Formats: sequence, C-alpha cells, structure tokens
Amino acid sequence: MELDEITISRAILSSQMNTLIDCMELDVAVVGAGPSGLACAALIAEQGIRVGVIEKKLSVGGGMWGGGMMFPRIVVQEEGRRLLDRFGIRSTPYQDGYYVAKSVEAVSRLTAAACDAGAEFFNLTSVEDVMIKGDGRISGLVINWTAVEMGRLHVDPLVMRCRYTVDATGHDAVVARLVEKKGGDLKVRGESFMWADRAESRILRHTKEVFPGLVVAGMAANAIAGENRMGAVFGGMLLSGEHAAGLVLDRLKK
Amino acid sequence: MELDEITISRAILSSQMNTLIDCMELDVAVVGAGPSGLACAALIAEQGIRVGVIEKKLSVGGGMWGGGMMFPRIVVQEEGRRLLDRFGIRSTPYQDGYYVAKSVEAVSRLTAAACDAGAEFFNLTSVEDVMIKGDGRISGLVINWTAVEMGRLHVDPLVMRCRYTVDATGHDAVVARLVEKKGGDLKVRGESFMWADRAESRILRHTKEVFPGLVVAGMAANAIAGENRMGAVFGGMLLSGEHAAGLVLDRLKK
Amino acid sequence: MELDEITISRAILSSQMNTLIDCMELDVAVVGAGPSGLACAALIAEQGIRVGVIEKKLSVGGGMWGGGMMFPRIVVQEEGRRLLDRFGIRSTPYQDGYYVAKSVEAVSRLTAAACDAGAEFFNLTSVEDVMIKGDGRISGLVINWTAVEMGRLHVDPLVMRCRYTVDATGHDAVVARLVEKKGGDLKVRGESFMWADRAESRILRHTKEVFPGLVVAGMAANAIAGENRMGAVFGGMLLSGEHAAGLVLDRLKK
Amino acid sequence: MELDEITISRAILSSQMNTLIDCMELDVAVVGAGPSGLACAALIAEQGIRVGVIEKKLSVGGGMWGGGMMFPRIVVQEEGRRLLDRFGIRSTPYQDGYYVAKSVEAVSRLTAAACDAGAEFFNLTSVEDVMIKGDGRISGLVINWTAVEMGRLHVDPLVMRCRYTVDATGHDAVVARLVEKKGGDLKVRGESFMWADRAESRILRHTKEVFPGLVVAGMAANAIAGENRMGAVFGGMLLSGEHAAGLVLDRLKK
Amino acid sequence: MELDEITISRAILSSQMNTLIDCMELDVAVVGAGPSGLACAALIAEQGIRVGVIEKKLSVGGGMWGGGMMFPRIVVQEEGRRLLDRFGIRSTPYQDGYYVAKSVEAVSRLTAAACDAGAEFFNLTSVEDVMIKGDGRISGLVINWTAVEMGRLHVDPLVMRCRYTVDATGHDAVVARLVEKKGGDLKVRGESFMWADRAESRILRHTKEVFPGLVVAGMAANAIAGENRMGAVFGGMLLSGEHAAGLVLDRLKK
Amino acid sequence: MELDEITISRAILSSQMNTLIDCMELDVAVVGAGPSGLACAALIAEQGIRVGVIEKKLSVGGGMWGGGMMFPRIVVQEEGRRLLDRFGIRSTPYQDGYYVAKSVEAVSRLTAAACDAGAEFFNLTSVEDVMIKGDGRISGLVINWTAVEMGRLHVDPLVMRCRYTVDATGHDAVVARLVEKKGGDLKVRGESFMWADRAESRILRHTKEVFPGLVVAGMAANAIAGENRMGAVFGGMLLSGEHAAGLVLDRLKK
Amino acid sequence: MELDEITISRAILSSQMNTLIDCMELDVAVVGAGPSGLACAALIAEQGIRVGVIEKKLSVGGGMWGGGMMFPRIVVQEEGRRLLDRFGIRSTPYQDGYYVAKSVEAVSRLTAAACDAGAEFFNLTSVEDVMIKGDGRISGLVINWTAVEMGRLHVDPLVMRCRYTVDATGHDAVVARLVEKKGGDLKVRGESFMWADRAESRILRHTKEVFPGLVVAGMAANAIAGENRMGAVFGGMLLSGEHAAGLVLDRLKK
Amino acid sequence: MELDEITISRAILSSQMNTLIDCMELDVAVVGAGPSGLACAALIAEQGIRVGVIEKKLSVGGGMWGGGMMFPRIVVQEEGRRLLDRFGIRSTPYQDGYYVAKSVEAVSRLTAAACDAGAEFFNLTSVEDVMIKGDGRISGLVINWTAVEMGRLHVDPLVMRCRYTVDATGHDAVVARLVEKKGGDLKVRGESFMWADRAESRILRHTKEVFPGLVVAGMAANAIAGENRMGAVFGGMLLSGEHAAGLVLDRLKK
Repeated sequence: MELDEITISRAILSSQMNTLIDCMELDVAVVGAGPSGLACAALIAEQGIRVGVIEKKLSVGGGMWGGGMMFPRIVVQEEGRRLLDRFGIRSTPYQDGYYVAKSVEAVSRLTAAACDAGAEFFNLTSVEDVMIKGDGRISGLVINWTAVEMGRLHVDPLVMRCRYTVDATGHDAVVARLVEKKGGDLKVRGESFMWADRAESRILRHTKEVFPGLVVAGMAANAIAGENRMGAVFGGMLLSGEHAAGLVLDRLKK
Repeated sequence: MELDEITISRAILSSQMNTLIDCMELDVAVVGAGPSGLACAALIAEQGIRVGVIEKKLSVGGGMWGGGMMFPRIVVQEEGRRLLDRFGIRSTPYQDGYYVAKSVEAVSRLTAAACDAGAEFFNLTSVEDVMIKGDGRISGLVINWTAVEMGRLHVDPLVMRCRYTVDATGHDAVVARLVEKKGGDLKVRGESFMWADRAESRILRHTKEVFPGLVVAGMAANAIAGENRMGAVFGGMLLSGEHAAGLVLDRLKK
Repeated sequence: MELDEITISRAILSSQMNTLIDCMELDVAVVGAGPSGLACAALIAEQGIRVGVIEKKLSVGGGMWGGGMMFPRIVVQEEGRRLLDRFGIRSTPYQDGYYVAKSVEAVSRLTAAACDAGAEFFNLTSVEDVMIKGDGRISGLVINWTAVEMGRLHVDPLVMRCRYTVDATGHDAVVARLVEKKGGDLKVRGESFMWADRAESRILRHTKEVFPGLVVAGMAANAIAGENRMGAVFGGMLLSGEHAAGLVLDRLKK
Repeated sequence: MELDEITISRAILSSQMNTLIDCMELDVAVVGAGPSGLACAALIAEQGIRVGVIEKKLSVGGGMWGGGMMFPRIVVQEEGRRLLDRFGIRSTPYQDGYYVAKSVEAVSRLTAAACDAGAEFFNLTSVEDVMIKGDGRISGLVINWTAVEMGRLHVDPLVMRCRYTVDATGHDAVVARLVEKKGGDLKVRGESFMWADRAESRILRHTKEVFPGLVVAGMAANAIAGENRMGAVFGGMLLSGEHAAGLVLDRLKK
Repeated sequence: MELDEITISRAILSSQMNTLIDCMELDVAVVGAGPSGLACAALIAEQGIRVGVIEKKLSVGGGMWGGGMMFPRIVVQEEGRRLLDRFGIRSTPYQDGYYVAKSVEAVSRLTAAACDAGAEFFNLTSVEDVMIKGDGRISGLVINWTAVEMGRLHVDPLVMRCRYTVDATGHDAVVARLVEKKGGDLKVRGESFMWADRAESRILRHTKEVFPGLVVAGMAANAIAGENRMGAVFGGMLLSGEHAAGLVLDRLKK
Repeated sequence: MELDEITISRAILSSQMNTLIDCMELDVAVVGAGPSGLACAALIAEQGIRVGVIEKKLSVGGGMWGGGMMFPRIVVQEEGRRLLDRFGIRSTPYQDGYYVAKSVEAVSRLTAAACDAGAEFFNLTSVEDVMIKGDGRISGLVINWTAVEMGRLHVDPLVMRCRYTVDATGHDAVVARLVEKKGGDLKVRGESFMWADRAESRILRHTKEVFPGLVVAGMAANAIAGENRMGAVFGGMLLSGEHAAGLVLDRLKK
Repeated sequence: MELDEITISRAILSSQMNTLIDCMELDVAVVGAGPSGLACAALIAEQGIRVGVIEKKLSVGGGMWGGGMMFPRIVVQEEGRRLLDRFGIRSTPYQDGYYVAKSVEAVSRLTAAACDAGAEFFNLTSVEDVMIKGDGRISGLVINWTAVEMGRLHVDPLVMRCRYTVDATGHDAVVARLVEKKGGDLKVRGESFMWADRAESRILRHTKEVFPGLVVAGMAANAIAGENRMGAVFGGMLLSGEHAAGLVLDRLKK
Repeated sequence: MELDEITISRAILSSQMNTLIDCMELDVAVVGAGPSGLACAALIAEQGIRVGVIEKKLSVGGGMWGGGMMFPRIVVQEEGRRLLDRFGIRSTPYQDGYYVAKSVEAVSRLTAAACDAGAEFFNLTSVEDVMIKGDGRISGLVINWTAVEMGRLHVDPLVMRCRYTVDATGHDAVVARLVEKKGGDLKVRGESFMWADRAESRILRHTKEVFPGLVVAGMAANAIAGENRMGAVFGGMLLSGEHAAGLVLDRLKK
C-alpha cells in the first residue's frame, strides 16, 4: 500500500479536532502538567471522569526533568514513596526515610499513567482568562495557543467549559493569579522562605477549593497560602495531587 | 522524622554524580531522545548493554510532542503499529493501513520503556565534538551543559567514552555534521523534498554505520543520505531505531 | 437567547476544521497574498476552481499597505488601471498615463474580490517544503503555522495536495527558492537594479511555469529571471497575477 | 510611454502629502482600525463627515484576522448579522442564532466600506498624546510614526486637530489610558472575567463619551467600564461601532 | 498671538515635503554624512550645484564624534590643516606636523558649512538600491526610511534621480557594494591592514569615478581599492572629500 | 614627513586626558546637549566661565535632528527667532509669526557656537548619580561611559565637581529624577497634555534653580513642573536655555 | 604515559563533587566575590573555619576589574593601604593620603589569599532563596547554577547549610533583598547620594548582623543602611570585609 | 583628612593615562589573558621586558574559571605540574601522572605572577586589526574598547606599537584570523577532533612564529595548525605559554 501524505494530514486533523470540539465541555480541567497535575489527572480520570490537561509548553513534566541543579534525580520521603510505587516509578533508599528516583523515569511513568486512565492532553496551550458567570464560580477556561503569545500575535482565544478546574501550575499559581488580578476574592500570598519539612507537612491542608470551582494542588497550593518553600522533594507534590483528586471526585459525586 | 534539606541535596548530588562518573565509560551513547533514539536505546538496553541517552533539551521526546501543526497526534502504518504495540502505545485505525496515536502517550510510553530497560538519561547535555584517536573511529563524545551555550559562557567540556554512538538527532544530524565539519570522511546531504512513501520505504537502508563507530537512526539517516522527507509519520522512525539497535547489538557481540 | 461561549468555540472550530480538512486537496494553491497573489486567486476562483491562498502573516496585502516610504499610495499606468477598475479600486490621474490609488482601498478591494470569488484563505501559515513524487512535479505543499517558526518550536508540518502552485511571495520567491535549495532544476537569479520601465514591460514574459507544477507571479517572477526591479508601481504586479491566472486556467482545462 | 521612477515618487509624495496636510484638521479621528473602528468610520464618513482612521500597524483589521485561536472564523448573533449584511459580509448559520463568517472577508469588506465612504487611513501611525487646551476637552491628537517607537528613535511628533476622537483601540483603550495617565478625570478599569453574554448585552451602554471630546467603542468601551470580556464574538463590536457613530453624528449636528 | 499646534504641523509638513518633492531630481547625491561626505557636499554646493546629503542615522558626523577610542579628538597633518582652517575648525599643534582638533567642533563646523552652501540633508534615510537604465550608469538612488529596516517593516522605497552619486559611506562602501552585489562591474576589495602613512598618501588616487555615475570618497575609496587602513587621522578624509568635489564639478561642467 | 600611528594615538590620548583631568573641576556642568543645553552652554561659556557639556549619546543635538515625525524642520515664533538669528541659523517665515528652520543647520550652528565660546564636550558620557555633601547642595556629578551601561558591564564611575549643574536632558529630567529617587526634596511631576501655547508661555517661569545647585532648562523644566507639553516648537527651548544661562551667571557672580 | 580523556573527566568530576557534597554543610557562606567578600573570606578561612564563596559570575573580582570608568586603577586611603599591604598588593602614593593600586593585581592577590587560606569557591552559582526554619534565623542558602537563570530553564535548586552568611553582593544586597521580599524583618534602604568621605567613615558601623545569621559587608552594608555612596575607593570595602570577618569569628567562638 | 572624590578621580585618570600613553610603545603585546597568555606574559616580563596584556573581557582567566562543565577543577600531567609549582598553584594527585588543581586558585596565582613580574594589563580592550608596514611584519595592534563593539558604536580605534605580538586568544586565534582575513600569508586551519594525548604532545611544535612578528601560544597554536583538540587539560597550555616566552625572549635578544 502506498503511503499518502494527505491521508496522514487528514487523519491527524480530524482525530484531534474531534477531540478538541468534544473537550470544549469537560468535567475537570487540570492546568499544568507537572508532578501534582499529572498525578491528579491520572487519579481522577481513573474514575471514568472526563479530564483535560492543559500545558503551556510543548512537553509535559514541568520542573521535574531537571531534578536539583540539573542533576536529574528527585527525592521523596516514606509517604511519597507509596505514590512512586503506585505509578511504577522505581526508587532506591539513600538514607533512612529518603528515597531517590530518576527524573526522566518519574515524568514518563506519571504521564503514561494519566494517558492510560484516559486524560486528554492539550499541550502548547495557555490559559488567558477564566469564565465566571452569574453564579460567581469558575465554569470555564479561556485558552489560546502558547505560540500566539510567543509570537506576540493579536489573536483571540476560545473558551472551554469545565465543572472543576485544578490549578497545578507551580509557584506561579497562574489560574489563581488571573482570578486575583481580575478582582476575584482570592489572594495569592507567594511562597515564603525555604523550609522543606514544614512545607511538606502543610501542603495537604493548603490543597483545597480556594475559589468556587477552583481547586489548587502542588506548589501552587503552598504559594497561595504563603507557605514555606519545598525544594527538590517531590513527595508532597504527588500527595497534594492525590488529595486534590480526592476533593474533586467528592464534589463531582454530589 | 524531620525532613532535612541538606540530606536531600546530598542524595541528589551523590546519586547522580556516581552515575555520571560511572557513565564516563559507556557501551553505547544514543544522541537525541526523539522517537528513533528512544526506541533504539530501549531495545539495546534491554539486552543488558550499558546505554546513555544524551538530550540537549530539558525534556525528551523531540518533535513528537507537537504531532502535526500542533495537533498532538501521530500516524503510523501497519509495520509501525507493531512497535507501538510493543511499547504499549494505543492506536486507533483511521483508514485502511493508517493508525493514529496520541503524541503525549507515545512519548511517555517510549521513554518509560527505555528507563525500564536500564538506559541512563543525560538531559540538558549537548555534544560539542567527538573523540577520534589513532584508529580513526569515534571512541567518545565531547559533552557540555546546554546551558553553557545558552548563556554564552566560556566553559570547557568533558569527554565520555563509548564503543558505539547512535546519531538520532533528527534532520540536523548533529554528530554526523560535527564529523563532516572537522574533515571526517562523511557527507551530510540534507533531506530532499517531501515524499513520505519513498522516505518510509528507504529509511532502513540508510540506517547504518556511516563512519567508524557512528550509526545513524531516524530522520538523521535520511538527511545524511539526501533521502526524501517524511512528515508526521512516525512509523519509519521507530523502525529505524529498532534497526539501529540491531546493528549495534550485532557489532558489540563481535 | 443567551449567548454561549462553548457554542461559539465549537462553531469556529468545526467550521474552519471542515474547511481545513477539505482543503487538504486543492486545485490551486496561491502562496503569498500580496497584489499579484490576490489578483491571481480572485481570477482563478471566479471560474469555479478550488483555490487556497496561503499567507504567512496574520494579515494579507503584503507590501501594498505601506505604499512608497510609508506614504500609503500606489501608482499604476494605463494598463494597470484596467485592473484597478475591474476590482473597483478608485484612482485619480496624476499626470499623463500615471494614476494614483490609495493603498488601503486597493488591498481591501482585491481581498474582497478574492473572497467573493470563493478563494479560501489560510493566514498565519508558512510553506516549509514542497511535495515532489516520482513524476517530478510539485504536487503538494508542506505547511506549518508561522507561529511555530516564530516561537522556535519543534513541531512537524502537514501536507496539502494541489495540482498547481502559484508562487506570489514577492522578491523572496519562497517556493522557488525551496525548490532550488533542495536541488530542483530551478535557479533564482535575484532582482537586478531598479529600472521600472523595463521591469514592467518584461514581467509578463517572466510570469510562467518555471518548474513542473509551479507558476510564478509578481515580483517573484522578475526575481527568478534576474530582471530589473520595479519600485512602488503595482500595475505590473496585478497584470502578472492576471497572466498567471490565465496560464493556470489553461493548464487545468487540459 | 516610458515609465519614469521619479514621476512615480512625486505622484506618491504629493498625493499623500496633500491628504496629510489637509487632514491636520479633521472632524473625527477614529483611533484603531479593528472591527468597531472600521464600522464606526464607515458609518460616520457616509454622512459626508471628514474622518481619519489612525492605525499603529501596517495593516488594518486588528484581532479579526486570526478568528479564535488562529482558526480564521468569527461568530455573530442575530443582531450582529444585520451589520454583516449591511457591509456585504456573507455568513452561514451554525445553530439557532449563531452565524459564522470568514475573518478575511469580514476585514476586507469592512475596510472597503470605510474607504468607499471617504474615510482617510493613516496606518503605521501611533497616538502619543492628546491635545487639551483651556476648555478641558480633547481637541487634537499627538501622532508619530510607529516606526519611530520601534526603532527607539528620538523624534518629536506632530499634532492633528479633531472635533471628536473615537477610541477603538481594543482592550488597551490607548487614548483613554493616555488621558488617565496624564491626570485627566477618567478611569480605565480593565476588562473583567469572560462572560460573553453579559459583555455583549452591556457594550452599548458603555459606548459613550467618556471624556469631553472622547467617545469609546468596541472592547475599549467594556475595558474602561470594567465590564466582562467577550471572546471571539464580533457582533457586539460592530454594533458598538455603529452606536458610537450615531453618538458622534448627533453631537456634530448640534 | 496664540500659538497653534496645527499651523506648526503644517509648516513642518509643507516645508519639508516641498523640499522632498523638489529634491527627487538632484544634480549630486552624497551618501553618508561623515567627514568626507560633509566636505564634499559643502564644496560642491558652494558652486551653486543642487546637492542632497543622504544619511542613514538621525545625526550626521559619522565616526568623527568618537575620536579615537571614545576620546573625542582628531588628528590631521599639515595638508589636512588647510581644510580645517577653511571650515573654521580650530586646531593646536601637538608635535611637528601633527595637529589636534576637537571632534564635536569639527563635525558642527563642517555641517554648518554644508548647510550654508545650500546642501539639503535627508537624515534617517537609507539607500536600498541604485537605478541603472539602458545607458548603464547610475542615474538615481532607491531610498527608504531607515526606520523601515529597523522595524523590519515590509514597505516599498521611492526613487531619487541624480546625475552623480558620491559614495562617502566609510569602509562599508554601501553604494559600491550594492552595485557589486547586483552584478555591476565593480569590485570592493576591502581595507587592508593598518598603515596610516600609506593610506593617507594613496587616498587621493583612489578617489575617483569607480562606476559610471559613481564617485567614491573617504574611507570608501580606500576600501574599494583594497588600500591600507588609516586610523583616527581625518586629514586624508577631508582631502578626499575635496578631491571628489573637484571631480564631480569637472564632470558636471562638461 | 612620515605619518606615525603611535604619535597620533598619543596626541589624542594626551590631549583629551589633560582636558578630562582638568575638567574634573568645572564651574558649570550642562547635562544634555539638545537645543536648550547647547544654547545655555554657549551663552555661559561666552562669559569666560568654565563649562562642560555631558551628553550620553555619541552625537549632540537631541531630538532636534528629526524635526516633527522625521521631517527635519523646526518651527519657532517671533521671540525664538531672535535666538536663531543670534546663532546664525537661517529661517523662513511660514505664516504670520511662524518661522521654519532646518533641523540639521540648527543643531550644527548651535553646537559650533558652544564650541567657539569654549565649552568642552563629554559625549558618550552618562550621569549615574550626583554628589551631595554636608551642605546639602549638588556639588558634583557621578559620571560613567554610556557604553558601560549598554554593555551591562560592572564598572565603577568617576566624579566631576561643579558649582552649578544645568539639567537640560528633556522630558526625562534625568538629574532631577536622580535627586528625587535618592530622597532629595524635589518632585518631578511629568509633562501634562499637549498645549503648545501655554507650554511656551510658562517655560521661563519653570526655568529655575529647583534644588540647591541644580538649575533646569528646556523640556526638563516643564516636565518637573507638570506643565503642558510643547511639540516641535523649539523657540521656548532656546529661550529657556538663555534664561538658565542668565540665572547661573547671576549666581556665579555672587 | 598516554593521556586519557576519560580519566581527566573523572578526575574533575570526583574532585569537585566531593567538595560540593562536603560543602553542603559550611560554617560560613560568603555571597559575592568582590573586594569585601574576598577579604572577608580570606580572613575567616585563615582561622581554620570552613568557608564557601558563592559567586554568580564565571569570574570573581566584581566591580574591581574595571577601576573607575574602565581605567583599571583603584584608590585607597591610609587605612586601606594596611590591607593592601597585608594581601601583598603594591600601591604608589598619588598625593598625601591617597594611594593608587592596579585593579588586576588587587583582584588576583585578594583571590589568591582566600584560596591559600582554604576558602572554597563556587562560581557560576546564584542564591535564589534562604532557608529559615523554626528558630527564625538564616541557616542555609538555596542555590542554583546561574546558567539556569540565563537560559530561562525550569530547574529546581539545592540547599547548602551554613551557620553564618555574609552578604557581600555590593549595592544590590542580594541576600538581604531576598529576606526583605519574603517578609523578613529587614529593610534595604538603598544607597544615598555620592559622598565618599562620609560613606567611608560610616561603613564599619553598618557592617553588622542585620538579620539573625546574616552579616553584611562592603557596599551591601551601606546600601541596606541608606548610607551615602562611595565611588571607586576600595579601602572601605576591604576594611568592611575585615570587620565582617571579625564579627563572624567572634560569634562562631561563642 | 577628608576624602575628596575629585582627587580620587584624578588619581585614577592620571595614573592609568600615563601607563596608557607610555604603553603605546611596547616590546611585547600578549593578546588574551587565558592560561597560556598569562604564563607567557609572566615569564617574559620577569626578564625586564616591557609586556602589555590585552584582554577583551573585564576579567582575565579565559576558560579556566569554569574547569570542565562548570566543575571548577583543572587537570595537568607531570610536566604541567612543574609550572603549577613554579607559579605557586597547589595540586593534588588523582591517579598516576594526573594532578588536579582548583580553577580559581590557578587563575589568581598566574595573574598575580604576571603582575609581580611587571606586565601591564589592558582589560576591556579588543584587537580590531594589526599594523603592517613596508617590511611586511606586524609592528603594532589596532585596539579599541570592547564596549564600543558591545554597544555597536561607530568609534575609531587607536594604535599600539610592539616588536612582538603573542596570539594567546584560544581556538579563535583572533590575531591570526585578522591576518588571514586581510590577505596575509597565514592559514588558520581550525582545531580537529578531540584527542588530548596527541594535542598535548604536539602543542610545543605548533608554538612558533607563524607570521613575521606574530608568535602563537596555547590553543591558538593548535587551532592554526589544524591539530587535535585538548579538552580540560591545562598543562599543555601553560607549557606552550612558557615556550612562546622563550621564543620571544630569544628573538628580542638578537
């Protein structure tokens, strides 16, 4: 059989366009495909919920690829290791209670898990604004190609509806800051000094619905709360993603 | 147990530095972590061979993330589908003989496979030059942090020994061009016009040892041969990676 | 009736995607939406032929908007005026045989004419390569978002089939240069010195099929031929567009 | 007759200079040539009023060219469709009350209408400041070449007198912000969250004279009022342009 | 009397535009307003010849402002001092046969002399190409705003006729290189090593008509001839400007 | 006599260094070499006072070169014309009370006048800070090469003593803003809207000693006072320079 | 013996890695390797204390290399000369109480002294944050490669513990500003006007522990205190470094 | 005694200017202050010869600061260690015949040695060209501030006479390339592949006078000869510097 370029082009276009048109209405939009976003998306999608992951870069994984100071290793504690195991990420003990895993393996395994569970990925896509109507809750995201911003092009966005949004964009807390900037009742306080132990132990309490329809996870949660900074331990981020998934699933059941 | 930042830092440093010092002597260095490089690394490492994957970017995956024109889907033919299946990447038939897979899933599954097989990843790392001694074959790679080039810093490289190098850097054919530029007996002819069918059918014959110690795979193979261009079909690239792996394994056995 | 953002998004997506999927097979692709490309596209489409106009910028019009040295006026001669009249562009006589028109009006009228005739526009779209198969003629264009290049993203293109391509990209002669660079039997000689009279009088003879499947129009025609340069007279460019349309229509009839 | 370059140059210079010198006194200056500015200029000029359109870019059309997320389509509602029809822009129904039109056609038709009506275009021209004298109203615009700013050149502006200014510069509300920054009694509140329905229904009430001599139209009107954001529906923008034209015409009659 | 901004704007526009339209036909165009260009223009214009000076920067003076290594002094020899005296530039002897003058004074005096003599200045104006018709001689210059290039705008140029062109653009020899690049029979060999004495003594023999209609002066003359480099002695440049003026005046008389 | 490069280099170095070392103690430092600074420096130096002019650019003249919108003409009123005459700048009447002069001639004549009067120029030199000791008045300027800032080099400045400083840096009011930023009792209010008539009539009252040891002239005077903006009329700027010179001379006499 | 590249690479890696892992726990971290930091580090390390010097640039020396306005000389007073002598930096008297030294010699001698004393250097390393735990004092630094910031890479930092931190980063007072920005009880007031005498005489009183665990030295001390600026006298900076060393040694003994 | 800023400024200016004027005639100019240039300058200056070191950057040391891949360590062999010892640089044995030293210590000790020996440093200074007169040998260097190039300023250079020039600019071989580019009989072949052992063993034979008056040292020597590349071993570079010093001293004696 001869390979036909035009058939290939149409296969790509029609396949992704159906997904795109379809996903204009999601149950859950997870913004940011770093460790907490990936874990959260995987665990929600596993329950058969319709999840879309919106990532501004071409690749997913966030800050995890570079480990600490470009040495591609991550460290987790005992609790974090449970999630590494769950996603099939191998780790080796370094010292009592400290486990080291490889960055590249961690990203690929987490992503594969989210794909397997049925999450859809929209990479190269930025969130420009949120949709808030009369009920005062976030009911959609205003999205655009990241390339539009990179090329400083004057191009309007589209809108994607979702019942819940998870802001997993790291310490920038992109969605939360958009809400704050536009006058929503939400304050992003910014990360405080480095204190890994405290940051890890408090992250779960900061992982919550901070604005109607908006749940935060990972470093974004700590950044909003003005909590201490964590460093290159990724256990808390995975746990926070798991916790956010639980919260969203609970609310969706109601 | 209290979490200690310094222990984390040391865990990362010592774990990766041991790997780094250790990997200064490799069996095989695969340069470029796109589809052909990942497939090749996975299949070689599976045989218990010591493989390092050198990727200049922070993330692996190359041009696969963006699918065609930022629509994150890839297309493969019947033969390519065999490898998708092997790496656990799901695909759906579009039309007779054409299968569509999701970009993000494809990258993460391929990468996970290479990790599982034991390949080590050196991301954010560029190849500046090759080491060629009296026997006239490539016996090592001259590497540096990509960040050194990005910051236009004047910093010297280090050298990593390897018995075989696989150039899987796409149509730039980075390693082959270094050899050509320094006067090695190798000519990079550059990709010809788009003609997917021909490009796919010829890629395996161009996947070979083009210079003593240097095997090429994927688009780099076609670019060196002056072969036609492929477009967003990734089947040939995976097959080329598989073929390169076979060649290298054969030679290592001798 | 309440306005729904998601319906709007889906309306845009499905409308344009159908066009896009549909236009993966065109009769004629006109590359470049300057004066000659617009005139050519309008005159071909008027005959019921399926024409797509590919423009790398967000807006069409090319160098016409700026007139001469940012003074937004263009000048045509007697012959050019016939085409101004045909497209409903008003002009005023300056001196015997010289007519002045307004740049903004000229662009908008030409574009409106092409739209009315049924030409489809693909703006923000660049031509990366051409498709040439066994018969040695250009049978398709390899396209990508211009934003991909602007953002220096690593994203693969798609392919659009067409029976004839018109290169109306101005003195860059983008498509012709791609053919030349990849080793096609075509030489782009570059514009010679300014000599408006000669350039105008010779442009029609240079407007021709320069490579199987590739017709050139406007400044690209003169640039390929090494002809003299024209300056801010746009009459010749419109006439060249008309001539190219005639050539393509003839060939399509055969 | 031989074509003479110098005659062409003089034709362009003298033709545009007369226009420029002449237009230093306008009845109405419309700043921004997006959908609302173009509609407004067309409808005012149709009444025989002397209108100048000042556009900072080389091309007119603003954000309309790119449709939504680079898919060049726009959507209007029933009311907006009346204006599409008036300007000869074809549309197709998508679903009850939603009509889709092509971006390129919409821009070119609107522009052609403004040209036909007699509006003069000053593209590549930026507004640096406003002229306010003893009566406290805006009685002129301080303009410069956009290229002066792009090249970071130290070059002084010129001044253009006008009885009314329409700020149709989109959500930047450029003229209004200049007034605010210099201490004028005007507050630009900035667009609120996306809520298309509400934004559309309120835009006409925000389209008004916000400062003596300054009428706002389109997204600038909503941005000043702190109103919700609209997205890629262009009906409200056209209607706002029409409304602003009515207001200005009323005032000029007095 | 009250000051009116619009009158000021019109005074500037009409005054300069008349000059511009008028100067589309010059006797002599001097390109580059460094020391040799200024001297040449002054000495030609003094004879009542119509001279235009085209300078790409906002300010005239070229490399003279910065003296040597940003120490704003220039040095001339005995012969050069005659021209300093002629233009009213004060100098002080440093050592036998070496005189030092102040850079700022030298530029301003030379420029004032050219203005007094009646030369017209077109600053911020670049030469993009030359006009060569059937007689094979340069009969005009293709000019554009320098800001067009700085802002990477797509804007066409205008054409200015002149009987003689003087290329006084320094070692770039801009006009000569344009001629060379477009295939004219002229070779720009580039400056050789520094050897001030030889460079000074040979510059007058290189100051000549190098192409029909094109006289070169100053460093451009030496650069074309492949002559040695001069350094911060400006005597030879002034003398070359004087010599070029003589040549042009002779030819114009014929 | 043979020309010796090393003698030339030494002539430049020793000549300028003596000036530089000498000028570390000035009577008056004029910062900014635009129209008001040049006029002020010329008129002070004429009285035998030791004046240094510090200009951050390579060339002097400021915004005067570009006239209005790159049309190199300036306009003055009756009063301004007196100063044009004084400095030998020719002008032609445009309309009752409006005179037009050429930009290039104006800059060169003003500069020549300042040189003749004995002012020393330090171009390519920026003012980084001011020296204020126990008496609370500005008694010196902290200067550096402008190139240090352009190259983002970490290089310390030198200090130049002066009895009076004139800030003639245009609407940036560079010296005044330094004083304000460091906590000095001085408020720069910024230019208000364009109103040429008022700006011209008030500039002399704003030309005064705004901080002990600091006199302001030209647009800087209006900018500090929050006065209206002037546009391309340069009469007021020259008059302000004259006025500032008078003030400084008076104070120095005391 | 044959030289082996891989042995060289491993020698570098293992040698520096041991140092790096070891230095994750320091007694004192000196941030900034300018004159005060170098002097301070040398004097502390001489006492057998474990000191690390963190410098963001590739080279140490800070602003000392460029002397004043790129003339590579520094000036010290009588007191400063004692330290020059101590570090073996030669100086020559200029005038009573003023000594001039060469910049390059000063940097190299100071650095050599710090090396001899046993200080470890971490160049190309930036401080991103500080670690503050329950006791409210700075107990560590959050560091990253400077190249990560230069390349705008998303890479996490590591953490280095230290008992005392010396901020010797010049007027930026980098560490102190981090503490201030994150809400620590510390105010960086910024340098006041130039007044060398006062700045020199007060610097020792500003050299102190400004936050628990943070001692400041050199220009950073004056910048925090809002003290006057010093200029190119380096005596005070050396003395401040000496004083800071004394303070830290005292505290460490307790 | 009160500290006076102006005295400090004058001390710096007069001290460095005397040096500068004085050094316009040198015996030897060493271009590039990396390891080979520093060693060479130190060893020549020790013999009482007048040496100037010209370094384009603010700091000296070249690529030595960054060690290998930003790990600041260098490696030398037995022979190189003799020179480390001579300059007081400590090293520790890694393995038989391999010694590791610290980068920062190595740079500072080498530089201090060159200063002690009496070499003068001209940092921030670039070589733009060479002076070659009738005898065909390099008899001087054409120098400029590096900041002039960084700021893209149009400023002329000065000229420094020298009997011998040493090109120690690393693999760029800056001076040699200038000679080649201007047509001198010298070919820079460029470094070949990495092969440390061979590169080290051949460097001394490539360290020679490659053009009348021009001696090359360090990597520049190998780059000119087309020799293999060395990597982060610095022994050969020091030895080459020593060898170049010997050559120059021999020739100067003749």
